[in-house]
Amino acid sequence: MAGGPSAEAESCVFCGIVAHRTPAHILLEDESTVAFLDLFPWSRGHLLVVPKVHKARLTDLSFELQTALLRTLGEMCRRTERLTPNYNLGLNAGRPAGQVVPHVHFHIIPRYGEIDPFRSGAREPLSDADARALLRELGPS
Amino acid sequence: MAGGPSAEAESCVFCGIVAHRTPAHILLEDESTVAFLDLFPWSRGHLLVVPKVHKARLTDLSFELQTALLRTLGEMCRRTERLTPNYNLGLNAGRPAGQVVPHVHFHIIPRYGEIDPFRSGAREPLSDADARALLRELGPS
Repeated sequence: MAGGPSAEAESCVFCGIVAHRTPAHILLEDESTVAFLDLFPWSRGHLLVVPKVHKARLTDLSFELQTALLRTLGEMCRRTERLTPNYNLGLNAGRPAGQVVPHVHFHIIPRYGEIDPFRSGAREPLSDADARALLRELGPS
Repeated sequence: MAGGPSAEAESCVFCGIVAHRTPAHILLEDESTVAFLDLFPWSRGHLLVVPKVHKARLTDLSFELQTALLRTLGEMCRRTERLTPNYNLGLNAGRPAGQVVPHVHFHIIPRYGEIDPFRSGAREPLSDADARALLRELGPS
C-alpha cells in the first residue's frame, strides 16, 4: 500500500482526472486542487472543485487542504460571475445526501433564471463546442 | 456613514443576530463568524454559518474572512456528524439562485434518508424543545 493509491482511489473518476488519466476540461489546477467542467451539467458552466487527494469528506481534509480548496472555490466563483451573478454552491456529504463520487467535491451551478434546474429531467452531456467556449470564458483572465 | 452600519445592514435579520438584537439559537461564535439554528429547518439540525460583516456574496469577503468562515463551517460539519454522517452544504448567490437574505450564509442541512427534504411542503418552525435539544447535541464538546 505504502506510496501507491488505494484500490478505491484507482477506480475513482476524479482521481483519474487529477492524474490526467481521464480526459477533462480543466479550468484551474494548483498544487493541491483542480477545477473542471461537469460533463453532465445542470446548467451552462456547471463546474466541480476537488482536492487532489482522495478523501470522501470535507472533514477528512486538513484545515490547510480545506483552505486550498476554498481558495480555488473562491477563484472559480469570481470567474463564474463573468457568466452570471447568480449561482449555487453545493457539497453533498454521503450517498443519502446525493454524493455519488466518494471524493470531496464542491459544485458551482450558474443560474440564469431557471425555476429549478435540478428538476429539469435528463441532464444533457456537455457538447465539445460549449466546452471549448466555456474554457475561454472561465479561463484565467 | 463612517463607523455606522448601513441602512441595509440595520434591517438585515442576520446582522440582528450577529449584534444579539434578534434572538437566535447560537451554536458557535468567534471574532468574525456565527453559526446558529435555522428557525424554519428543512431537516432536524439545519443550521446557518455567517460572517459577522454584512456582505452579500462570498466573493465580497477577503480571503482571510472566507477562511474564518470555512473554519466555522468545518467545525459545524464535524458537530453535524454527531447527528448523521449525511448532509448537504449549500450557499446561494443571488435571488434567482434562492438567496433570500443578502448576507452571505452557508446552509448545513442534515439528511436522514429523506428522498428530498427541499420538496416537503411547508417548513415547520423549530420548536423550543428541539432547539434546546439541538443546542446540547451541537454544542462545543
